Amino acid sequence: MRFNETLEQIKIYEAGKPIELVVREFGIKEEEIVKLASNENPYGAPPAAMEAVKESAAKIHLYPDDSMHDLKRALGERFGVESFNIIVGSGSDQILEFAARAILNSDTTVLMSRITFAMYEIYALQQGAKIVRSGCYRHDLEEFYELYLKHSPAMIHICTPNNPTGDAIDREYLYSFLEKVRDSLIVVDGAYMEYAAYKDERKRIDPKDIIDRFDNVLYLGTFSKAFGLGGLRIGYGIAKREVIENLYKLRPPFNVTSVSLKAAQAALGEIDFVNSTVQKSFSQMERYVNYAIKRGFEYIDSYTNFITYIFDKELSSKMISESLLKRGVIVRDLSGYGLNGIRITIGTPKQNDILFEKLDEVLNGY
Amino acid sequence: MRFNETLEQIKIYEAGKPIELVVREFGIKEEEIVKLASNENPYGAPPAAMEAVKESAAKIHLYPDDSMHDLKRALGERFGVESFNIIVGSGSDQILEFAARAILNSDTTVLMSRITFAMYEIYALQQGAKIVRSGCYRHDLEEFYELYLKHSPAMIHICTPNNPTGDAIDREYLYSFLEKVRDSLIVVDGAYMEYAAYKDERKRIDPKDIIDRFDNVLYLGTFSKAFGLGGLRIGYGIAKREVIENLYKLRPPFNVTSVSLKAAQAALGEIDFVNSTVQKSFSQMERYVNYAIKRGFEYIDSYTNFITYIFDKELSSKMISESLLKRGVIVRDLSGYGLNGIRITIGTPKQNDILFEKLDEVLNGY
Repeated sequence: MRFNETLEQIKIYEAGKPIELVVREFGIKEEEIVKLASNENPYGAPPAAMEAVKESAAKIHLYPDDSMHDLKRALGERFGVESFNIIVGSGSDQILEFAARAILNSDTTVLMSRITFAMYEIYALQQGAKIVRSGCYRHDLEEFYELYLKHSPAMIHICTPNNPTGDAIDREYLYSFLEKVRDSLIVVDGAYMEYAAYKDERKRIDPKDIIDRFDNVLYLGTFSKAFGLGGLRIGYGIAKREVIENLYKLRPPFNVTSVSLKAAQAALGEIDFVNSTVQKSFSQMERYVNYAIKRGFEYIDSYTNFITYIFDKELSSKMISESLLKRGVIVRDLSGYGLNGIRITIGTPKQNDILFEKLDEVLNGY
Repeated sequence: MRFNETLEQIKIYEAGKPIELVVREFGIKEEEIVKLASNENPYGAPPAAMEAVKESAAKIHLYPDDSMHDLKRALGERFGVESFNIIVGSGSDQILEFAARAILNSDTTVLMSRITFAMYEIYALQQGAKIVRSGCYRHDLEEFYELYLKHSPAMIHICTPNNPTGDAIDREYLYSFLEKVRDSLIVVDGAYMEYAAYKDERKRIDPKDIIDRFDNVLYLGTFSKAFGLGGLRIGYGIAKREVIENLYKLRPPFNVTSVSLKAAQAALGEIDFVNSTVQKSFSQMERYVNYAIKRGFEYIDSYTNFITYIFDKELSSKMISESLLKRGVIVRDLSGYGLNGIRITIGTPKQNDILFEKLDEVLNGY
């Protein structure tokens, strides 16, 4: 057996630690663990989505509707696009994977921000593509344009709001970049768009607007964040028909469960619930901003349901996150991204109380 | 944008038609449709699995345990292997995809039966690999060995029982082949193994036995068939650690939903339920054998929960399956596989009553 050479340089992505792991490793009771590491919606899924899951139980022996007819129609109505402009994946992650496999090979380059979603790199490496990163972790699109001219990337990743930093770019600023770059496939990842659009209308990227104007842009959205369906693995891509058809060639049949399809459709009917959780999240975020100011931490103004604290040299993000973990609080250490910082999901008021209590303990005992 | 050349030769896999599609296309009421096209377990999922789905509803906002710790332990106990010998996928399909992407490229060849599971070819084409097929649709392993010597395939697919034909090979016959082929990755797809092992102990392939003896074999199993979880997309691969680790490099994080993980674990605790449905299926299969004899059809002796009828020239499998479809009965036409036949899932007694009634109608009016 000879495995393909590209595998040699691939590292396994370390996902946010699940509650089960902390229960097993530290013997902490499940109900005492506060998980603020994976940017789930702490207020839970929309009630109708939970109901849809229960109702699906009687039919789990049947394969899903592989045409995803009903969900695509609901998404089409939400965004004002046609079903043939939509591809549904096992998380928007899977659409990223399809895009990488459709476009990249060992002769191509992919451009992305210095600090951005880890899977962009992993999928590119799986294809043996060369990776070029901006120097600035914010999406400095002038720098992106220079790098584009220099490297002619086959694919460009723009994550707005950006994960794991939380900053977002203005729509008009993005458009001025898109107007100049007409050949690369540009993936605009809006996994946290519901948050950004709520906080500041100028950050709202509308997929219909995008595909009406640009043939080479793939917009990604997900049900895992504001829509509260992280456990069900469902997201979507929206683009011009030609792009979607090519991605479809790489879509395995039945790539999303029947339960997830039903739940996502139900969730789309609960926009008011979703918006109310987004509002609560930003209301709680003020506490995190105040905490950072009080402690003298640098923080990034966030357009998402998480906040990123950046520490001075005296503090180690790795030690802080490990100390929190032992106390049953899971946050995301960003040292793997080259940032001495932690990313904290904005939790429920009670979860945030515990986070601040435990973070006080860790910092006061540092 | 330039899409990779390998996409040009890929056709989209046509999955079995879902009930929803027949409702939409023919205006037949959902409760009147009999779906015998996708080899689901017609007796439904094990009750504990349905219960697990309902119980998971409250936590669908949380990402799955990406280590899949509990399910791997349960699978490990069932098969007597270690967790590091197991990879869990979104159906065993996804493990096939990982294997193709790990091993194949445009300089490699893959060997498979003339008529076998369609995804083997599709994943190979996605990698640009060359496909060699046996002349015989049964797994004639002498022929396979000759083709192996001639083409040095990087990967060999053995599907036992075979889909869509239903025949199975003897364990000792397989072993004598595996002993001679020590370099290719050999994928032994046991998606219907619970049926074959029940009907004839000589057909049982034990994954532990396989990996104890052969370093280059990947065994696949699924929860979609006998275990009744087709809608939840969950299957597994079992192999030596080195193989699993390489496949893991291509596994996207959270590739299986939290609901599916819980349901699969619950299903493993209901072996008696599963076996009782397998027994019922073979008991009903006698009716299908008798029907074929009465009608003078050729049929393939089946080790699965489906039966394949092969027609003489006077009958067209395409017309028969379309005529059944208009009557609300969904079966699988095999003309796309180069076989003038249909594959029928053995349904519940009532479903089978309807199938025979409608098939009589179609044949008598032919």
